Amino acid sequence: MLGMKLKSFDHLNCSLAQTLSVVGEHWSMLIIRDAFFGLRRFDQFQKDLGIARNVLSDRLKKLVAAGILVKSEGIGHREYRLTDKGLALQPILLSMTHWGDTYMPNANGKRLSFVDRRDGKPIKAMAVHAADGRKLKHLQIRAKPGPAFFSGSQSSPMISSFVRHGDD
Amino acid sequence: MLGMKLKSFDHLNCSLAQTLSVVGEHWSMLIIRDAFFGLRRFDQFQKDLGIARNVLSDRLKKLVAAGILVKSEGIGHREYRLTDKGLALQPILLSMTHWGDTYMPNANGKRLSFVDRRDGKPIKAMAVHAADGRKLKHLQIRAKPGPAFFSGSQSSPMISSFVRHGDD
Repeated sequence: MLGMKLKSFDHLNCSLAQTLSVVGEHWSMLIIRDAFFGLRRFDQFQKDLGIARNVLSDRLKKLVAAGILVKSEGIGHREYRLTDKGLALQPILLSMTHWGDTYMPNANGKRLSFVDRRDGKPIKAMAVHAADGRKLKHLQIRAKPGPAFFSGSQSSPMISSFVRHGDD
Repeated sequence: MLGMKLKSFDHLNCSLAQTLSVVGEHWSMLIIRDAFFGLRRFDQFQKDLGIARNVLSDRLKKLVAAGILVKSEGIGHREYRLTDKGLALQPILLSMTHWGDTYMPNANGKRLSFVDRRDGKPIKAMAVHAADGRKLKHLQIRAKPGPAFFSGSQSSPMISSFVRHGDD
């Protein structure tokens, strides 16, 4: 399993770290972005990103091994498509896109906006919501340890102290 | 400005790529995660992540230069705190955490859950929503080019063809 990952964060018992172990790398996320836009072939990714062929080949292999892309043989070419696991990355990509729109804007205005196909209206800005739909700011939420949090020697002692502190 | 970034994606006219240029690196995201948990000091980050001191020093410098962390001098130590720009990364971190919970789970169950401080209820799973609150799947949204999309030579020809194709 380790070989599938870009970098192992198995010593960090953290879902964010696990996610970063497979998509926490620039090119991987941009390949995934391109796949969302409908690109499927090696040469399409290569041309679009201007990425070195050996790097692209390595990243595609890792994304396939991680179950994010699936490779199929087309007529005369291989195709890479997002799996359900890959499609489930969409909130991450859109959260990153919205943050970039706000904090690293293009001087000419918006680059792309994402709209509901049904009515053409922009999607809601990515945000954290309570069960009842209220928008929550960072101080309005807290982390609550689950059954896996204190298991084994993997827990982060620093984070643990902060989580315990905030727990009721 | 280039020196502030981990890697320049200025040739990619894309908000996602811009975001990745400052946070698209494992350690940076984990440092930001720790800052959300309340860690502030070099030694706290170092101990928590088990990261090499020179790497940590480099990443902290870049996060300060990018305006995500602000450095202040405490009594006998420097402190790093999230700016508003840094706090606005929360939807990205939680989207990544939820994806990791689902697709890279711990055998013992949940590691951490995030709850509303007010009522202790879990926050909503991070998802893409329409203006009226409906949850949208990836095929239900489309990208619409904004004023900056076709500006200069930066646009991605591949993405452009897909965006034009999907446009009405």
